[in-house]
Amino acid sequence: MLDPSFTASLAALLPASSLLTATEDTRPYECDGLTLYRELPAAVVLPETEDQVVRILQLCHAARVPVVARGAGTSLSGGSLPVAGGVVLSLAKFRRIVAIDPLTRTAVVEPGVRNLAISDAASAYGLFYAPDPSSQIACSIGGNVAENAGGVHCLKYGLTVHNVRKVRAVLVTGEIVEFGADALDAPGYDLLALVTGSEGLLAVITRITVKLLPKPQLAQVALAAFNDVEKAGAAVGAIIGAGIIPGGLEMMDQPATRAVEQFVHADYPLDAAAVLLVEADGTPEEVAAEMDEIRAVLTASGATEIRVSENEDQRLLYWSGRKAAFPAVGRISPDYYCIDGTIPRGALPRVLAQIETWSHQYGLPCANVFHAGDGNLHPLILFDANKPGDKERTVEFGDRILELCIEVGGTVTGEHGVGIEKIRGMCVQFPPAALERFLGIKRAFDERGLLNPGKGVPTLARCAEFGAMHVHAGALPHPELPRF
Amino acid sequence: MLDPSFTASLAALLPASSLLTATEDTRPYECDGLTLYRELPAAVVLPETEDQVVRILQLCHAARVPVVARGAGTSLSGGSLPVAGGVVLSLAKFRRIVAIDPLTRTAVVEPGVRNLAISDAASAYGLFYAPDPSSQIACSIGGNVAENAGGVHCLKYGLTVHNVRKVRAVLVTGEIVEFGADALDAPGYDLLALVTGSEGLLAVITRITVKLLPKPQLAQVALAAFNDVEKAGAAVGAIIGAGIIPGGLEMMDQPATRAVEQFVHADYPLDAAAVLLVEADGTPEEVAAEMDEIRAVLTASGATEIRVSENEDQRLLYWSGRKAAFPAVGRISPDYYCIDGTIPRGALPRVLAQIETWSHQYGLPCANVFHAGDGNLHPLILFDANKPGDKERTVEFGDRILELCIEVGGTVTGEHGVGIEKIRGMCVQFPPAALERFLGIKRAFDERGLLNPGKGVPTLARCAEFGAMHVHAGALPHPELPRF
Repeated sequence: MLDPSFTASLAALLPASSLLTATEDTRPYECDGLTLYRELPAAVVLPETEDQVVRILQLCHAARVPVVARGAGTSLSGGSLPVAGGVVLSLAKFRRIVAIDPLTRTAVVEPGVRNLAISDAASAYGLFYAPDPSSQIACSIGGNVAENAGGVHCLKYGLTVHNVRKVRAVLVTGEIVEFGADALDAPGYDLLALVTGSEGLLAVITRITVKLLPKPQLAQVALAAFNDVEKAGAAVGAIIGAGIIPGGLEMMDQPATRAVEQFVHADYPLDAAAVLLVEADGTPEEVAAEMDEIRAVLTASGATEIRVSENEDQRLLYWSGRKAAFPAVGRISPDYYCIDGTIPRGALPRVLAQIETWSHQYGLPCANVFHAGDGNLHPLILFDANKPGDKERTVEFGDRILELCIEVGGTVTGEHGVGIEKIRGMCVQFPPAALERFLGIKRAFDERGLLNPGKGVPTLARCAEFGAMHVHAGALPHPELPRF
Repeated sequence: MLDPSFTASLAALLPASSLLTATEDTRPYECDGLTLYRELPAAVVLPETEDQVVRILQLCHAARVPVVARGAGTSLSGGSLPVAGGVVLSLAKFRRIVAIDPLTRTAVVEPGVRNLAISDAASAYGLFYAPDPSSQIACSIGGNVAENAGGVHCLKYGLTVHNVRKVRAVLVTGEIVEFGADALDAPGYDLLALVTGSEGLLAVITRITVKLLPKPQLAQVALAAFNDVEKAGAAVGAIIGAGIIPGGLEMMDQPATRAVEQFVHADYPLDAAAVLLVEADGTPEEVAAEMDEIRAVLTASGATEIRVSENEDQRLLYWSGRKAAFPAVGRISPDYYCIDGTIPRGALPRVLAQIETWSHQYGLPCANVFHAGDGNLHPLILFDANKPGDKERTVEFGDRILELCIEVGGTVTGEHGVGIEKIRGMCVQFPPAALERFLGIKRAFDERGLLNPGKGVPTLARCAEFGAMHVHAGALPHPELPRF
């Protein structure tokens, strides 16, 4: 419960429609894309101006009320899960595209602008914004920056952090700071990179300058079938090893392609153990040359069939399967749990083989759909929450996959962020010396720990509580946090 | 003076040849490439193993002795200037190339390895390390990471921060931390980006994993002459605005080309007010297509002459002039002062015109040689230190250029770092709220302030002392620090 005088101060600051306190109004904010966790906030504020953001934060700071910033609420790691008794600060009304400059190839946007809306607006200049999370129709650029979002195009064009030039944000004390510069480099510590991916723990973003890229003249996708998952994994490494950086390099195994085929009929070969989608983009000459190389590497890697899209319709058809993979799997299983881990590309064959072995051991089907070029895995474990023991085995299976990710030199999250979901994994991923630096950085920005508390970085005490400490490729702590 | 028991502890740890305390031995370490500032360290240590680094730092931390890490000592901003009474920790003996992996396209190297030695070693695999500071024959990769070094190729291939995958370092307390991951992304705050460019203030680097790129099959350079400096500046913006990202995009004005011609005979047109060098690299087809576009933009921008290198010898000849520009200017003037600032590309014509005006006003010739594509200026102010008043006017002229850089949205340093040289500029560049965050980050890593103290980030008290505070495009403080 908020102190009535605090609520009155908020009410004095905002129009009635921008301050929600009744349960029926705050209910839609109780969770984000990670629906496993829910918490009702004490209030939701929807400021329209940066000055309102400043004042809200000053009020919260003075009253020591926790604040969770929220964009479109599509986080898959609970990044915008409210804190009990705290305030949710929605940036939904910050949806202006302030400027698009084709000369500097940048767009200045407010954090509530949808990812795809930037490319739509830039399209008139032949430009686009490269990072493209699967949720790009819905997710907002502020959330993308907060989570350092990835996507199919990030292999070639970089993650969000590589495509942001400047961020303007409000500190919890109400001071406005600009991170980055219009110039290529900025002096001092790289606060722009620091705030990107900081999951709302350091500041509240109010304006972002993103880089735009020229739209490629042509894109073509090769669909390659393999009779063996490990061979497909090895082909991914071979493509990159050959010096090719495709516009997209995605992989699906048979459980995934079969689910997809039933759903969207993307013309995938159903007898293949795994399918790779490899996109080339650029000028027609570049695409032709690169596609020749891709074809050669795929053939040498043992592809049993290679089809190259002959027109834009066919290209979009091939991609439609990949894009519909998650809902397609949702159709064939009562429940599924999407794991997000990243591994060095060279470890793909080993990790994929191990996941298949575990899938049989646990008796839980697993559909693999992922950004293969980045080494970013999304195993979808299929289960039935109503079947006794299924949930527990799913959690254990998922934890073993993440432990394996760390063991082979990877990380417990690829692009979904730590949020609340991977907080235990951070204890295993990082030694206390690194966690202490994280906590020190947090203190430098938010000494009272009011911004998105409990997310992103665990305290050492919490790691001890979880029974988890960095043990170099050690086991994840037992799930004492309820995951389902 | 160091406490004798402290020195004895160092002596117990290191062979005699790795601990220098006699003035004749420490003298070579009294400055780096910024020879204006000199300071004798109390001791120089040259460890050979990471364990020795750990123990040296633990000793210094316990005894509260300042430590300045040093690579090849080529810093142009005094980044490795010793602290009186402190220790210089040289990484000169860390010169192993640990591994080169063509499949993941990475090299694992020790910090003392020279920049160019990495490309030489990677060459056997058809790979190279992209960031190429002018000092790349001499400078070390550890220093490159500490300064986030740039270079001609950084326009297309990114700064050091974009080409480093993992950094292993020792904290001042002796703990070893790895920043980054073998995977594309790492959870938690982006400590890899934070430590890159941190100028030795946060940790001592002992191992670096860099990304390697495939060597382009072909490179060609266009040399374009302009009868007007502003037109040449506008052409730079037009090239980038047309969607071309050249492998290199450099500019020299007439004072620079004339100095160069007398020195290396690079076949530059001497009647031109400015010369652009625009490189295209890739497959022969890509280069041909890009060179057509470059030629069209240069023509439309008013180039009076365009020559394209017809073979590798000619390409290297054209570049030889750019590479020899600094020594060439050194030949024609008793002294010169190299300014390093960065501006948005669109501001090039305005800033260049203003520099020319000031050059006349101050009666000081100025040769402009710079990474035009990045907007990274290197005006070389020519003066004679023995002529009364010349130094003072040079400093004032330089300060006005940097003030203008900030005013147009740029920064007080492009690629040379803050070090000791730009510490006053940081007070103007950043508001107290940002400087406080910098200082908080420093505390999170080095609470006692022992690593490279006095560099990189000024305290607020020091800014007040300089009479300088962030005033949004305000004037730089009067030079109370002796600059010459």
